Amino acid sequence: MKIYFSPVSPYVRKCLVVAHELDLSDRIALLPASVHPVERNQEVFAKNPLGKLPTLITDDGQVLYDSRVICEYLNHLAGGSLFPPPGPLRWTALALQSLGDGMLDAAVLARYEDAARPAPLRWDAWRAGQLDKVETSLKALDDLPERLAGVEIEIGKLAIACALWYLDLRFSDLGWRDRYPAVARWYADVSLRPSLQMKVPL
Amino acid sequence: MKIYFSPVSPYVRKCLVVAHELDLSDRIALLPASVHPVERNQEVFAKNPLGKLPTLITDDGQVLYDSRVICEYLNHLAGGSLFPPPGPLRWTALALQSLGDGMLDAAVLARYEDAARPAPLRWDAWRAGQLDKVETSLKALDDLPERLAGVEIEIGKLAIACALWYLDLRFSDLGWRDRYPAVARWYADVSLRPSLQMKVPL
Repeated sequence: MKIYFSPVSPYVRKCLVVAHELDLSDRIALLPASVHPVERNQEVFAKNPLGKLPTLITDDGQVLYDSRVICEYLNHLAGGSLFPPPGPLRWTALALQSLGDGMLDAAVLARYEDAARPAPLRWDAWRAGQLDKVETSLKALDDLPERLAGVEIEIGKLAIACALWYLDLRFSDLGWRDRYPAVARWYADVSLRPSLQMKVPL
Repeated sequence: MKIYFSPVSPYVRKCLVVAHELDLSDRIALLPASVHPVERNQEVFAKNPLGKLPTLITDDGQVLYDSRVICEYLNHLAGGSLFPPPGPLRWTALALQSLGDGMLDAAVLARYEDAARPAPLRWDAWRAGQLDKVETSLKALDDLPERLAGVEIEIGKLAIACALWYLDLRFSDLGWRDRYPAVARWYADVSLRPSLQMKVPL
């Protein structure tokens, strides 16, 4: 398999973390690519008309995106248990994945506002509104630590861990650990997993 | 079940279309709500820390989001076949859903640029970049009409149909039918399904 890859894409990282959990890392070649909301990467667009990372090419040549589809595919390929079968546990895990991905979507939009949009065109209320979604999500997790508790790892927890990784990468002055100590404790613990210790060349 | 609902949310529409396909519409109460990227809707935030529509409350009180999770849940509840079981057909359907949702994500960001952001802060290249993703997606579908062909309806096709509905709602001058006639023919045909004929109070 091959995956279009950027070391700073949190959605790519999510797929690689899942691959590591499933012992599939050695079967996935990394195709370095950078994408940008305004400048087009033709190579990625040729495979994925949304021009987004991650995009996976399977050994059969099937093109899969986005990260949710890739992660579920990898889990099935490896016979993994990161996606529970249909039932309440699955809906809980998938909704937690939606929360992690939603935190990321919001943080990435705030990052684009900071780093891609020309300074005179920045809208503070937009950036604040996006980061507020991150804040309310962290608060919800901190108020309900049982959502993250338990030793079973699944796709929802991994998505949350990848969102927290991105906050530390791009919003290192957010200081979320002080406000959400239960999330901070969980993250410190789960981060010891080899999949989340993974370093990729920056 | 109850769903937080806005008649102009394409992701809510996707869930309601899926519910209609599964003959579940009568079991879902609509809770009118409007959300905005900057102005907070406290009632929705209390259930979903991302503050987004759709958000579904199941009969057991479980809170599910986003549209992908809700649609898969409804399909399972009804014993439907909109989500194929694991295998190539599932990955194809899910990647097509990602394409439809990605077209929507891009179109919604372009719409926010037009309608939510103060005029002096608009960035033409951002709007153009988002609509370009819509354009390349339409072209990919038009170049590979077999992706939409066949009589079997599944979640991917419904997601594409909902994306096209939103383009007509918010970008009625886009003129996509002239440029992508195979997609236009497919959409005219699939739109005859009762689920896609559904009108909701605007």
